[in-house]
Amino acid sequence: QGLGSLEAHLRPAPAFVLVRPQLGENIGAVARVMLNFGVRDLVLVDPRDAWPNPAARGPASGADIVLDDARVVATLDEALAGCRYALATTARPRELLVPVLTPEDAAAQCGARIARGERVAILFGAERSGLTNDELLRADGIVSIPVNPAFASLNISQAALVMAYEWARADGRASFSSELDAAMPATKEEFEGFMRHLIGALENAHYFFPEHMRETMEQNLRA
Amino acid sequence: QGLGSLEAHLRPAPAFVLVRPQLGENIGAVARVMLNFGVRDLVLVDPRDAWPNPAARGPASGADIVLDDARVVATLDEALAGCRYALATTARPRELLVPVLTPEDAAAQCGARIARGERVAILFGAERSGLTNDELLRADGIVSIPVNPAFASLNISQAALVMAYEWARADGRASFSSELDAAMPATKEEFEGFMRHLIGALENAHYFFPEHMRETMEQNLRA
Repeated sequence: QGLGSLEAHLRPAPAFVLVRPQLGENIGAVARVMLNFGVRDLVLVDPRDAWPNPAARGPASGADIVLDDARVVATLDEALAGCRYALATTARPRELLVPVLTPEDAAAQCGARIARGERVAILFGAERSGLTNDELLRADGIVSIPVNPAFASLNISQAALVMAYEWARADGRASFSSELDAAMPATKEEFEGFMRHLIGALENAHYFFPEHMRETMEQNLRA
Repeated sequence: QGLGSLEAHLRPAPAFVLVRPQLGENIGAVARVMLNFGVRDLVLVDPRDAWPNPAARGPASGADIVLDDARVVATLDEALAGCRYALATTARPRELLVPVLTPEDAAAQCGARIARGERVAILFGAERSGLTNDELLRADGIVSIPVNPAFASLNISQAALVMAYEWARADGRASFSSELDAAMPATKEEFEGFMRHLIGALENAHYFFPEHMRETMEQNLRA
């Protein structure tokens, strides 16, 4: 647990920049999904309500470290100072001549740039209005999450979850492994011994009926 | 919009099976992320509270069709009847000799099986307790979401979001495309004309200073 924490603390990751966020609850929910996937740096640009915002605590569900270290700035310029690459999430297509990336490609781009020491940011717009076109144009590209066009209303913490999840994948975070990977398979003679036991017990129980089906039944058991 | 809806309705997808779900709010939030990514079939096994549950409406955020069509059953057996493949999500490793899949591989497996006409289910456990080992063993494999081990507490709708998102990717749902893909690039002579205009204007503004840097500055502008 301690080591995991430390690792999450030390490994560089993109900063998540929330532009004009409104509800503290949503800021807390974003902090939670960030820490779930090892993303630590939260920047709030001109939040509607005062910060720290007690409404963020509950939904953060223990991700206090992200809230406590969140940086509050007045403008997007300040949020992006020192960054060399930024991507903007948006729910709807814009008539802008900028590249559009899938979340997976976006995370890979961030990973490549972070690996060479660049600071990187991912921008999320306000709850209702999203990012303005001027704000989007401060980014090097747009990230489009492949939602159902008939029902595309992801909220901010859901968009943050997809980006944080893809970041964890790009950063090589693994699923836990199967016990099967560690288990030693039986030797062939152990397996044959097991089959003799099993077939003997089934024999005693008169399982092999009708008799002419015995061979197929045994083959299926073995398979 | 109408077509998108119809498509979400018609394309087969895994059923999402919630085993002993507690809060109606969480059921609603799951319905929302399902429909966001084109997943329609929700099954509730022995929900704690009566169904329909009005608490689910708000968090469903308009995904009423998923709630209205949800199937309530008493047992996991009933939920799985007719399914030929099932996967179980779990936050923690179990000492069970079953395969563990990443969300991406899980979605690909579901896609392959659905493509050949099989019914497929993904199981999600109750809010606090998760799935029991006996319930997990009803599945063909476990899905492990690659969370930060120091902060692994995904809630049920977040786990559902990851699985629904990966399903959409496996099912070939695309991000929206860039305007760049449709825009016709300038011809080379148009581009040269633009460069002449730009450099002429900068010349008039005495931009190229000091003079010995002019060539490099022009080259950088062109690049």
